[in-house]
Amino acid sequence: MSELRWGPVDQQWVIFAPERAGLFLTTTPDVRVAEDPASCPLCPHNVEAAAKTIYRHPHDGEWQTRVVANRYPALHIEGDLQPTGVGLYDKMNGVGAHEVVIETRDHARPLAALSVAEISAVLATCRARLVDLRRDLRLRYVTIFKNHGSDAGALLTHSHTQIIATPFIPTLPRAELTHARDHFVHKERCLFCDVLHQEEIHSKRVVRDDDAYITFCRFASPNPFEVWIMPRRHQHDFALLTDGDLTLFATALKDALLRLNAVLDDPPYNFALKTAPSPNPRPGRPNDWATIELDYHWHLEIIPRLTRPAGFEWATGIAINPTTPETAADYLRRA
Amino acid sequence: MSELRWGPVDQQWVIFAPERAGLFLTTTPDVRVAEDPASCPLCPHNVEAAAKTIYRHPHDGEWQTRVVANRYPALHIEGDLQPTGVGLYDKMNGVGAHEVVIETRDHARPLAALSVAEISAVLATCRARLVDLRRDLRLRYVTIFKNHGSDAGALLTHSHTQIIATPFIPTLPRAELTHARDHFVHKERCLFCDVLHQEEIHSKRVVRDDDAYITFCRFASPNPFEVWIMPRRHQHDFALLTDGDLTLFATALKDALLRLNAVLDDPPYNFALKTAPSPNPRPGRPNDWATIELDYHWHLEIIPRLTRPAGFEWATGIAINPTTPETAADYLRRA
Repeated sequence: MSELRWGPVDQQWVIFAPERAGLFLTTTPDVRVAEDPASCPLCPHNVEAAAKTIYRHPHDGEWQTRVVANRYPALHIEGDLQPTGVGLYDKMNGVGAHEVVIETRDHARPLAALSVAEISAVLATCRARLVDLRRDLRLRYVTIFKNHGSDAGALLTHSHTQIIATPFIPTLPRAELTHARDHFVHKERCLFCDVLHQEEIHSKRVVRDDDAYITFCRFASPNPFEVWIMPRRHQHDFALLTDGDLTLFATALKDALLRLNAVLDDPPYNFALKTAPSPNPRPGRPNDWATIELDYHWHLEIIPRLTRPAGFEWATGIAINPTTPETAADYLRRA
Repeated sequence: MSELRWGPVDQQWVIFAPERAGLFLTTTPDVRVAEDPASCPLCPHNVEAAAKTIYRHPHDGEWQTRVVANRYPALHIEGDLQPTGVGLYDKMNGVGAHEVVIETRDHARPLAALSVAEISAVLATCRARLVDLRRDLRLRYVTIFKNHGSDAGALLTHSHTQIIATPFIPTLPRAELTHARDHFVHKERCLFCDVLHQEEIHSKRVVRDDDAYITFCRFASPNPFEVWIMPRRHQHDFALLTDGDLTLFATALKDALLRLNAVLDDPPYNFALKTAPSPNPRPGRPNDWATIELDYHWHLEIIPRLTRPAGFEWATGIAINPTTPETAADYLRRA
């Protein structure tokens, strides 16, 4: 069973997940990317036989996307948090959700190779899980992310996205939410709308721009060729997207992935959707994010994995990026 | 030339270092760990011919440790900061230091294989560079860290430690310093002395304990088999260590590395020394850390690289650790 622990020096939660001990790099060389469809746990013949289905699309007939529980769960949906002090320290039960969104039936097709309609279906599946997981008032934040390629942490080649819902708002999303709220308190403007406006003035970092979405490399990108996709219209929550919005967003996402593939030769990458936290406070609690509709602005962050963080980055939290966003955007615009 | 940039969303400095563009994982397959002494830039015959020496020990005769400039510097010692606003954003020149401490003349001997006297000489060299770099009032924090093994980010097998001095206190050290100061303000006690006391009560996480240093796996370790070495006596700054202190610390460090090697079969690892920031404020500025002697407590953090951070860890800042510190300490104690 997983456990959450909090220490007083760095003051953030750590997830202890004993089921994931088999994923050590050095001690278990048998954990390899599953290249063979016969043994791929996400291929239709295996997933239909084994895994409990959390969600599927479409509901009837042959499925196109399917959501199953992660085989190596970081968190478990059963139980109560039971927050407990341990001397100087704190712990809670590892309550949460860890799901895998199978993006396609086809073992060999990566996300970038799917059609806009197929990518829209993947995004609609993520939206459905986001809405459903928020009904659980123990869970405070839903992280939707993707690992593509083994250098980006993927253990399976079959294209998939993951969802982890946590009973707390994680450190980095919380920092973003707080900075955005502070900006709004002082300036009566959305921080991300201000960034969007600034990027439109200095278009050297813009990769692609249409009526609905802007794709750009941000000014202080910690990672080379980091790309953000953000709605041009102020919108705080990914759950609000209509099917029409999803199609336009899928178009921008496919475009960004194809540009990265063209420039960087199919790089390993991660993406993460940054959206509002759960809109429903726990019973009896105030809503810490009462102004979220005004001050936050959802977006997708795509990070090709081109550099290896080492001792300095780990010790300091400071990134060393060899490529300016202006250079990266120039390459990506021409692609 | 390097540049520092600050964005309003995550609000931390990013180092842009164009000299490091050659270190991309995917685009430059020729960057490989230098296995061959003939081409090793840290071996005596090459380093004496090429690199400008920043420091050497002993001063005369055959050197035992030697400090040279990093070939791919993240920061440069020349110039002024010139902090500049760029619309919503901020930038400064990439002023700082990036040095390599060559730990031994011998290409093939890792740090754990050096004698206690040799490790003491490495630590004394780091202490000398720490003291010297602090004389430069532009620099606010000195990070001393090590990458061992390519999975830990090392590009060279020849054993070395690195030093990066920054004109700001990086995010994670600043958080630690702030948490320690807050603890002291409220409780009139050093946070780390409290942790030490707590670990002594619950000795399940203690690996080794002598009169001078405690070696332990902390309660909420983000990384499996993460080990801290901390002086038992309250001491805020590594620069204060006497040669006698260094010998005792070198003994504890060698012991910890040998235990990790025994349990994990020579794992890749990073370590980082967490010590007080520069004690001298910039001219005309208040000293933000006036109580540092009371509230901080230096220590060394050692992280074997056993898991690969992926999309979730990168997006949230939350670690998933498969191994409890109690289990890790139990293995390490028996080693």
